[in-house]
Amino acid sequence: MVKPATSPISFEVIAQDGQARAGILSTRRGLIETPVFMPVGTAGTVKGIRFEELESKDLDARIILANTYHLWLRPGVETIKACGGLHRFMGWDRALLTDSGGFQVWSLGALRKISEEGTEFRSHVDGSRRFLSPEVAMEVQAGLGADIVMVFDECAPGKATHDEARASLELTSRWAKRSREKFDQLQREAPDMGCIGMTLELPEKLSGAQALFGIVQGAAHRDLRRESLERTAEIGFDGYAIGGLSVGEEKSVMWEVVDEVAPLMPPDHPRYLMGVGTPEDLIEAVARGVDMFDCVLPTRNGRTGQAFTSRGKLNVKNAQWIEDQRPLDESCRCSVCQRHSRAYLRHLHQTGEMLAGILLTHHNLAFFLDTMRRVRQSIRSGDFPKFRREFIEGLSTSGE
Amino acid sequence: MVKPATSPISFEVIAQDGQARAGILSTRRGLIETPVFMPVGTAGTVKGIRFEELESKDLDARIILANTYHLWLRPGVETIKACGGLHRFMGWDRALLTDSGGFQVWSLGALRKISEEGTEFRSHVDGSRRFLSPEVAMEVQAGLGADIVMVFDECAPGKATHDEARASLELTSRWAKRSREKFDQLQREAPDMGCIGMTLELPEKLSGAQALFGIVQGAAHRDLRRESLERTAEIGFDGYAIGGLSVGEEKSVMWEVVDEVAPLMPPDHPRYLMGVGTPEDLIEAVARGVDMFDCVLPTRNGRTGQAFTSRGKLNVKNAQWIEDQRPLDESCRCSVCQRHSRAYLRHLHQTGEMLAGILLTHHNLAFFLDTMRRVRQSIRSGDFPKFRREFIEGLSTSGE
Repeated sequence: MVKPATSPISFEVIAQDGQARAGILSTRRGLIETPVFMPVGTAGTVKGIRFEELESKDLDARIILANTYHLWLRPGVETIKACGGLHRFMGWDRALLTDSGGFQVWSLGALRKISEEGTEFRSHVDGSRRFLSPEVAMEVQAGLGADIVMVFDECAPGKATHDEARASLELTSRWAKRSREKFDQLQREAPDMGCIGMTLELPEKLSGAQALFGIVQGAAHRDLRRESLERTAEIGFDGYAIGGLSVGEEKSVMWEVVDEVAPLMPPDHPRYLMGVGTPEDLIEAVARGVDMFDCVLPTRNGRTGQAFTSRGKLNVKNAQWIEDQRPLDESCRCSVCQRHSRAYLRHLHQTGEMLAGILLTHHNLAFFLDTMRRVRQSIRSGDFPKFRREFIEGLSTSGE
Repeated sequence: MVKPATSPISFEVIAQDGQARAGILSTRRGLIETPVFMPVGTAGTVKGIRFEELESKDLDARIILANTYHLWLRPGVETIKACGGLHRFMGWDRALLTDSGGFQVWSLGALRKISEEGTEFRSHVDGSRRFLSPEVAMEVQAGLGADIVMVFDECAPGKATHDEARASLELTSRWAKRSREKFDQLQREAPDMGCIGMTLELPEKLSGAQALFGIVQGAAHRDLRRESLERTAEIGFDGYAIGGLSVGEEKSVMWEVVDEVAPLMPPDHPRYLMGVGTPEDLIEAVARGVDMFDCVLPTRNGRTGQAFTSRGKLNVKNAQWIEDQRPLDESCRCSVCQRHSRAYLRHLHQTGEMLAGILLTHHNLAFFLDTMRRVRQSIRSGDFPKFRREFIEGLSTSGE
């Protein structure tokens, strides 16, 4: 296997407190302090929030996630390439990670058919027949030009039997090798994205300087998870992810797997727990050595009226807020909490105003990102256990 | 009739070019340069945009409009009073104008019944039976505490016969007197809004320092319009509005009425053309001596994918923008045009992403407000006729 001589990213752990690590992930689009939460920008937009807000002091998101599956179907990779790659297309010049689409096609259920070669499915956009494989996923992600690319994997259901999970793991392992090979070939060829001068000042060949992360599968079976990790690490990646969790299994199962896998993951590479989770989940996973997270909760729940606060979740719909002039979270310093009351947010939500979703999304992302900032500080100052205890306790004091 | 000794607002024309006037409307919430465009914030939010953006250099909206009808039904004036009035409820400390609800209940058509006393209608929110009269509209607007209050009027259809329009005018005139009387009583009583210290630092009795504008009606009949103006001016108001236009009549009819009425309106008070219009409408009305405007076009059309530009309207849906990396308007300096391409905006719109509406709303409001800034500059420098000619010519060069 020919790997690029040097990885386009580097990772360094700068402080450790128990298993919790504070690190720095260096990319050519800037430094990313870990543990880090990545807002989800599925279709090339973090729903309901402007990029200026993502960059603002309130949030200061250093990396966001976009989705290969969604962007491949619409607007299509050729369109994005013609516009100079995903960064230029979106107008975002900080770091981007693209998920491979493996999880999304798996989620289609009856609409997809998995074979050795890849996954055939019908587009949710226009019903057309599509085929996604490790090679296609790598080609699409090279076209998008994200800074971090994910291998194309197969996700086993949370309740998969040992045999089912083993078969899935084997397939994922073969797909990981094919992903690595295709990715390396594409990195050597570094297809020119045809970038023309817009807002970015980076070298043109985005697709020649990407990093690739492997994904550990194995459902709820700890022996298979260990094996998956070994085989993934053997192939060699710039970072390692735990996939197939938070897909309907019991929370205790998730923690068993993370407890088993995280400490064994290569310590000199970033560890990424995909699709997780609530603020308390993030902190619990950090305590087990995880460095990176993505989750739709702050944005999706924001749009349906749920706020995350230091005193637990708050539903703006509740009648008790009708005349409540307090902010969502009295200890939050975000621009929404500085300006707007629960009463006003409830009114916006009840009248179906867009601004409800916009403001709740902003607050929720501010809360998640600020929580991670505080996590990092506490690890660096050796106070993480105290922070963890107090944070979790605070959640149950409930603002409601 | 007892009027407050001094008006809480003052208006001064500082430059005139033909009939076009540049003026300054002074309110205790700051100076408003006229001609001015007021973004519409029907339910206490300008749809799809944060207040921080309305205050930003791109837009710098000095006054926005909210609606008595909508806010009275939901969340209700008692809730808003309990939250310290509309400014505090929304978190907006610049000027606010509230429409009286007359136009909105009139728009309900078959759902409302108009009598001498007022208008009975069914709430579009919960179907409950409601009654709005000059007295109720004044009470509600005192509770909301807007800086400028509108009289409760009756709007005649654009195609009303002379007899119908005369009957409507007579009713509007009687309602104007009742509005004035009730308003003055409320100003004298200055019901305490119960404001408690939040972000605003104004005296507590918001409802004791409001201004009241009268509304000229009369449908398409110029003699009735003149008569309505005379009778409205006789009662005496802090400003005068032309109502009942842009309600389905021919554009030529609208200009006939404005041509007739605007030059006769009291020159030392602001003249407000309600519900108008496109950028070219604003400029044409300014040329006829109008000072104030409100319209839902920039926000509503933004949400459905239509951009207003210096080269005319642009529909982001169009397939021709698929790979177009130009901004919506190449001569626009707003944050959306500085950052995002037509290709990206088209993608957002086609995928139903909230960000499409957010960004188009921002651009459209920036374009409207910047156009009014340029209108004011051109009047002050005596270049308004040239600006008007070039602006209107530019619109037909079409970006499409």
